[in-house]
Amino acid sequence: MKAIEQNFRRVTPYVPGEQPKKKGIVKLNTNENPYPPAPGVLRALAELSRTPDALRRYPDPAAQELVQALAASCGVGEDQIFPGVGSDDVLAIAFQTFFQSGRPVLFPDITYSFYPVWAQLFGVPYRCPALDGDFRMRREDYYGENGGILFPNPNAPTAIAEPLSFVEDILRHNPDTVVIVDEAYVDFGAESAIRLLPEYENLLVVQTFSKSRSLAGMRIGYAVGSPLLIRYMNAVKYSYNSYTMSAAAIRCGVEAVKDEAYFRETTAKIVATRERTARALKELGFVVLPSSANFLFASHPQYPGRQLYQALREADIYVRYFDSPRIDNYLRISVGTDGEMEQLLGFLASYTRGEG
Amino acid sequence: MKAIEQNFRRVTPYVPGEQPKKKGIVKLNTNENPYPPAPGVLRALAELSRTPDALRRYPDPAAQELVQALAASCGVGEDQIFPGVGSDDVLAIAFQTFFQSGRPVLFPDITYSFYPVWAQLFGVPYRCPALDGDFRMRREDYYGENGGILFPNPNAPTAIAEPLSFVEDILRHNPDTVVIVDEAYVDFGAESAIRLLPEYENLLVVQTFSKSRSLAGMRIGYAVGSPLLIRYMNAVKYSYNSYTMSAAAIRCGVEAVKDEAYFRETTAKIVATRERTARALKELGFVVLPSSANFLFASHPQYPGRQLYQALREADIYVRYFDSPRIDNYLRISVGTDGEMEQLLGFLASYTRGEG
Repeated sequence: MKAIEQNFRRVTPYVPGEQPKKKGIVKLNTNENPYPPAPGVLRALAELSRTPDALRRYPDPAAQELVQALAASCGVGEDQIFPGVGSDDVLAIAFQTFFQSGRPVLFPDITYSFYPVWAQLFGVPYRCPALDGDFRMRREDYYGENGGILFPNPNAPTAIAEPLSFVEDILRHNPDTVVIVDEAYVDFGAESAIRLLPEYENLLVVQTFSKSRSLAGMRIGYAVGSPLLIRYMNAVKYSYNSYTMSAAAIRCGVEAVKDEAYFRETTAKIVATRERTARALKELGFVVLPSSANFLFASHPQYPGRQLYQALREADIYVRYFDSPRIDNYLRISVGTDGEMEQLLGFLASYTRGEG
Repeated sequence: MKAIEQNFRRVTPYVPGEQPKKKGIVKLNTNENPYPPAPGVLRALAELSRTPDALRRYPDPAAQELVQALAASCGVGEDQIFPGVGSDDVLAIAFQTFFQSGRPVLFPDITYSFYPVWAQLFGVPYRCPALDGDFRMRREDYYGENGGILFPNPNAPTAIAEPLSFVEDILRHNPDTVVIVDEAYVDFGAESAIRLLPEYENLLVVQTFSKSRSLAGMRIGYAVGSPLLIRYMNAVKYSYNSYTMSAAAIRCGVEAVKDEAYFRETTAKIVATRERTARALKELGFVVLPSSANFLFASHPQYPGRQLYQALREADIYVRYFDSPRIDNYLRISVGTDGEMEQLLGFLASYTRGEG
């Protein structure tokens, strides 16, 4: 190492899911939505291409138009919404803002793999209670002293949702630390903790436009919380980068929120496809965890996960595989269109009949 | 303060320039470009509105298409470019990456007001050598032991550029710390330090699309540096948020870089307007610092800066005023179109003739 490097921050970065550039593949590896964003989103971009003033000028640093739309849609005040560059940006700012006590932050051992990366980056100590044998969180693990709590609901990559009573129990046991519920996948069948907000000032709910709003490409996420929490997050954000949300992200976000009917229709289609796919996988002998998300987490007693992952990849079907303890025999399969799922199932049917 | 707040990060955020929503104002307060972005940028957005797949999918986390375009345009390797959400994002990541020694980082006392805010946010000690009586940096101030050096060239809000020999002298005296040259305004008349890169592995040059590329609304900035520095910044970025650049930002950025003729034409127009405006202001009795940027820094011996700022504001002409020691009698005036500058000069002519 060179002398100059001794004063550099050294981190092991998160490795995002592959974004292959190859055409014609079945891409079920990053939990993207198979349906296009709402028609109003596409119209907003066309409109922006005719509005050069919106491009040459700085955007509204508060992204007020988007905050208003989200506040109305979530049934909260405008001072309860914090928008950001995807939920990763929002979660990273929450980490920096709320987890300063020096006591360990708690999150499950099997969960979104970005959490330990942020903890390392921001120097936040953490502890990871183990999920039980059914991949469920144990509420008692989150009762003791801690510096904050963070978990996805539904969890990832397990797809399993806990009921609202579970979330509330954790909130009740932790009045003095911030509890963050990462609801990236909530719109596919779990209950949002947003309705607990009036009672719990220490609750922060984080959601994203990348899954249920079909806008992974535009980078939009947001937190919903008490005015107290949102005020602190804004101070940190304005100290980091005043203008995080581009004019395009703000406009697309507003139009996506406004089209509630399209949102309901596309999420319902994904849920229906998920249920059909889960049944079909079980018929092929797979163990499939109960999913409330837009993906399935599945393993097969006869075929190792890694082998299936590689065989699928050779057939141009991309799913996600995690080489981690306890889950290294599972595949995480995003729910695509019915056609894409048929291609997947067709391949797996041949493969498990020994034709693969 | 509530008990829970004791573990929150408390910062004094940067206050961005006002973005008034009022129509019909002359907006010369945030150094935006008065000309629209290159025609290809607008076409790229229209095209994106017909490409829903690019919106529903995650963008390329490496923003490779934009990195390639910038590498070609800067004459460096692709491993020497780090793109981000505006130069504020790029600079914040550089702060986190390189200024970890515990020794004070040096930047001028009069400079971009975000620097001390980042230092506070990231817990980086700093020291601010004073500009001399002509608002110039003194090179000797940057010779001693330090944890890193950061300055804009041209400086802001003074608009004054230092020659490349000055930058090189500072680099030569600091082989063991990272020297960041913030070139947000370089395209309006200063020399870029990019051509010093082959000799100085510790040099990081930061540029933005917000000024000379007319894209403040899209949030695009980048660093150019040695492969060593860029590698470390990427590790921090991938630990924070893998997908910072939206599909729209990547596409617009590529088209803006490609249209070199449009870029030259619009920056030349702004420089010509700046020179005319500077002469006219001097004729009205203003002291105008020599500008190599897209703004002018000016004061009048008879009229206090704050009073002029307020009078202009009442006439719907917005300029920037900083209530800070040594510069509280100055106005920072962005260079707009010739028409906008005529409105400004017309008002100031009346005002200084006692008709205001």
